[in-house]
Amino acid sequence: MTLATTPAYDDLVALNQRLHHLGHLGSIAGWDQAANMPPKGNEARAAALAELHGLMHRMRTDAALRDRITQAVQEPLDDLQRANLREIERAWRVSNALPASLVERRQRATSRCEHAWRRQRPANDWNGFLENFREVLAVGREEAKLLSELTGLPKYDALMDRYEPGMTSATVSRVFGDVRRWLPDLIQRVIDRQAAEDAGEPLIEPQGPFPVASQRTLCEQTMKLLGFDFDAGRLDVSTHPFCGGVPEDVRMTTRFREDEFLGSLMGTIHETGHGRYEQNLPRHLLGQPVAEARSMALHESQSLSFEMQLGSHPGFAGLLAPLVRQAFGDQPAFAPRNLHRLMTRVKRGLIRVDADEVTYPAHVILRYEIERPLVEGDIEPEDVPALWDAKMRELLGMDTRGNFKDGPLQDVHWPEGLFGYFPCYSLGAMFAAQWFATMRREMPDLDARIAAGDLQPVFGWLQERIWSQASRWTTDELAFRASGEPLNPAYFKAHLEARYLNT
Amino acid sequence: MTLATTPAYDDLVALNQRLHHLGHLGSIAGWDQAANMPPKGNEARAAALAELHGLMHRMRTDAALRDRITQAVQEPLDDLQRANLREIERAWRVSNALPASLVERRQRATSRCEHAWRRQRPANDWNGFLENFREVLAVGREEAKLLSELTGLPKYDALMDRYEPGMTSATVSRVFGDVRRWLPDLIQRVIDRQAAEDAGEPLIEPQGPFPVASQRTLCEQTMKLLGFDFDAGRLDVSTHPFCGGVPEDVRMTTRFREDEFLGSLMGTIHETGHGRYEQNLPRHLLGQPVAEARSMALHESQSLSFEMQLGSHPGFAGLLAPLVRQAFGDQPAFAPRNLHRLMTRVKRGLIRVDADEVTYPAHVILRYEIERPLVEGDIEPEDVPALWDAKMRELLGMDTRGNFKDGPLQDVHWPEGLFGYFPCYSLGAMFAAQWFATMRREMPDLDARIAAGDLQPVFGWLQERIWSQASRWTTDELAFRASGEPLNPAYFKAHLEARYLNT
Repeated sequence: MTLATTPAYDDLVALNQRLHHLGHLGSIAGWDQAANMPPKGNEARAAALAELHGLMHRMRTDAALRDRITQAVQEPLDDLQRANLREIERAWRVSNALPASLVERRQRATSRCEHAWRRQRPANDWNGFLENFREVLAVGREEAKLLSELTGLPKYDALMDRYEPGMTSATVSRVFGDVRRWLPDLIQRVIDRQAAEDAGEPLIEPQGPFPVASQRTLCEQTMKLLGFDFDAGRLDVSTHPFCGGVPEDVRMTTRFREDEFLGSLMGTIHETGHGRYEQNLPRHLLGQPVAEARSMALHESQSLSFEMQLGSHPGFAGLLAPLVRQAFGDQPAFAPRNLHRLMTRVKRGLIRVDADEVTYPAHVILRYEIERPLVEGDIEPEDVPALWDAKMRELLGMDTRGNFKDGPLQDVHWPEGLFGYFPCYSLGAMFAAQWFATMRREMPDLDARIAAGDLQPVFGWLQERIWSQASRWTTDELAFRASGEPLNPAYFKAHLEARYLNT
Repeated sequence: MTLATTPAYDDLVALNQRLHHLGHLGSIAGWDQAANMPPKGNEARAAALAELHGLMHRMRTDAALRDRITQAVQEPLDDLQRANLREIERAWRVSNALPASLVERRQRATSRCEHAWRRQRPANDWNGFLENFREVLAVGREEAKLLSELTGLPKYDALMDRYEPGMTSATVSRVFGDVRRWLPDLIQRVIDRQAAEDAGEPLIEPQGPFPVASQRTLCEQTMKLLGFDFDAGRLDVSTHPFCGGVPEDVRMTTRFREDEFLGSLMGTIHETGHGRYEQNLPRHLLGQPVAEARSMALHESQSLSFEMQLGSHPGFAGLLAPLVRQAFGDQPAFAPRNLHRLMTRVKRGLIRVDADEVTYPAHVILRYEIERPLVEGDIEPEDVPALWDAKMRELLGMDTRGNFKDGPLQDVHWPEGLFGYFPCYSLGAMFAAQWFATMRREMPDLDARIAAGDLQPVFGWLQERIWSQASRWTTDELAFRASGEPLNPAYFKAHLEARYLNT
């Protein structure tokens, strides 16, 4: 980047570099908190992280920054610098949008609600949850109002914009409305077809136990197969698997159960997609917002490219089979075809995080259709259970009456006030299908190469079109440059039909 | 602590609380760097830690602090607050003593020297080392000069004061001079006696391999026996064992070799002494300098109380024996008496870190007698090898000519410019002997209780006299309050004679 002629921009670059360094320590300490920390360390850790976040917040909301950004806009920047400035300005807007009093109120409300929710969920205590959730929602609505005034976006869009910049509820409603029309029927057809297959050729269940040490080795070998760089990251264990750390040192976590291995393995493949995105962000620009992952939906498009498009590919099951046999010994269940049937089992269920890729969008659409009117004030928390039940019947034909713990109490998002996040999961699944449709168009032998163990075409494409681009472009531009069009859910439908109905 | 009437003091307390929180993140990130971090993460980690340390240095050298301290001295403080202010003032003086340019020059010189030393030591490259070491020494002499001017202490004393406040070279020379007179003869007598014992009853060597998982379990059980709180700390693996983390969450490390287990076990016992000191600092004062461990020698007095006084106690060998048998199966070598003979083997050697407690002071005295004239300008780096050889002959009867790698190149302290640190190791050993002599005077059945597995008298004494006192008193006052007299090396001599010569 140039010097001297762009003093304001250079100042902003230096500030972001400092924030990147300090954020590094927060990320590692946060990962450590989940993966290593003994219980009595928590209070001191929370105080230390609060100190750091307060410090970083003061740096981000320094009154001089507004002028610096205004000055930088006038400076002679090249395209990359201008993209970086766009992202700097966006981050500045997000950090400065809310008054400190509201940020503190939010922190108190979500802490209390989330903490109580951990007990209330297993106790099925919806009324207890409501007592705390009303304040979380009140804060969410206040945030939506302020952000909406600031951005000119509708309220829900203004919340969603923090996770998926540029995404609108008009687009989400159009896309989800389309999916809603064909999904229930598709689910039924897939289930019928799998039942017919089972009748002809019974599915064979793997026989446990599956020792944790063997599972760990299997996960690490699979991560290597998927190109994860263990010189720039690790795999550890935590209660809730996540991909943390920093791009230079990615800290993935998983969890193991001795009676089951596929859940942990597929979860690890999922997180590896997040991990490779982070590991392959443009190294020479790290520290600047333009070098960060584009958005939540784009991040999810990488984890789902790995878990669903690649990891659940019939050819990939053939690559996994010998590793699975090596880990647990030979079993009839580990034949590639049976393994693939296990990995692509479709079953209606109440729990989003346990859902397969066919039923998953139903869970997200339901939440979107409830949280949007909720934050916009068109419905109240009391209305949620009845709506939840009605939508579960429409979308999945399931009865949830009285079952709050497997209904609206199941996710951490609402207790934490993360309104506007849910759509990203399904938008990510759709982007992933779009990426692979583009790859197949450009590389007609893609499926054969995957089956032959040549995954480089996939990694190379993602590296060139997604990872290396980071936040250089808006999501729409990125999608267009990568695939020739903006988000198009038709690819997702075609993917499900091809995989599950052989059409 | 009182409010309103002590505004300057309260400001200083708040600053130290912030430094404590930020230091927490640096400690955990530093531990992670040694215990977890993959190699490609190092550059980003180093930059992140440099950012944090720079920030903390700016906070510590804020120009307003001098006045704040001057004002606080005038405020109505209680005794504890006054002790805290004394330590705040001391920390301020250390942080502000050296100009930023010298701190940077030191950083550059020691980084370069230490980095090259990693290759130069195995290559026995003394001349290569000298090229970088001259600048490290020049910086050390400059530091000594400035600190001496500031404190009025002699140059070496001014350096030592950073690690062991209040300790003078007059005291060290007197104490080490005393040890020097009786040590070579004592070493010879112990070696003769052990040889005679061997002739009568051959020493039995343990038979490996010793699986790492079993060693880890043995170390953890021994730490539990020694009262380490695993809800407030962990044991992990690193190349160079250390005790890091924070008082609220102590991160100990060790390392394992399959062909040997006693080194790792005794090292773990040593670090557990450091760990319990940290875990038992006064919790309600944490964040303030008065709640920090007193000094390096005091810290070492705790690790050596654990490793040498307690861990190498014949009664303790009886407690360890069943744990060792549980870990590796029964062997004749694991009989308590044989185990104790293995743990207390005395042998002259070239390497300080491998030395037993009898020969160890020889290594420290030698370094003290060289580094003191070195920083005071009475000798030059070229003079070191000849002096080293002469002193090794006098003290241990060993020839080191031409063997730089097992001579003056063996320690990381000089490449890192840590002049004045070495005496703390032996002062710590002497304090530890003094603590146990006091315990025996106050609790005549101490040895029987240790042998019976009742270690609480030891922990209770250390808790009351050392751990809970933190930095409330100067080292001399602390020693006096704990044992009725200041440092007295006669207890160390008596300890060695009692254990090794049965006198």
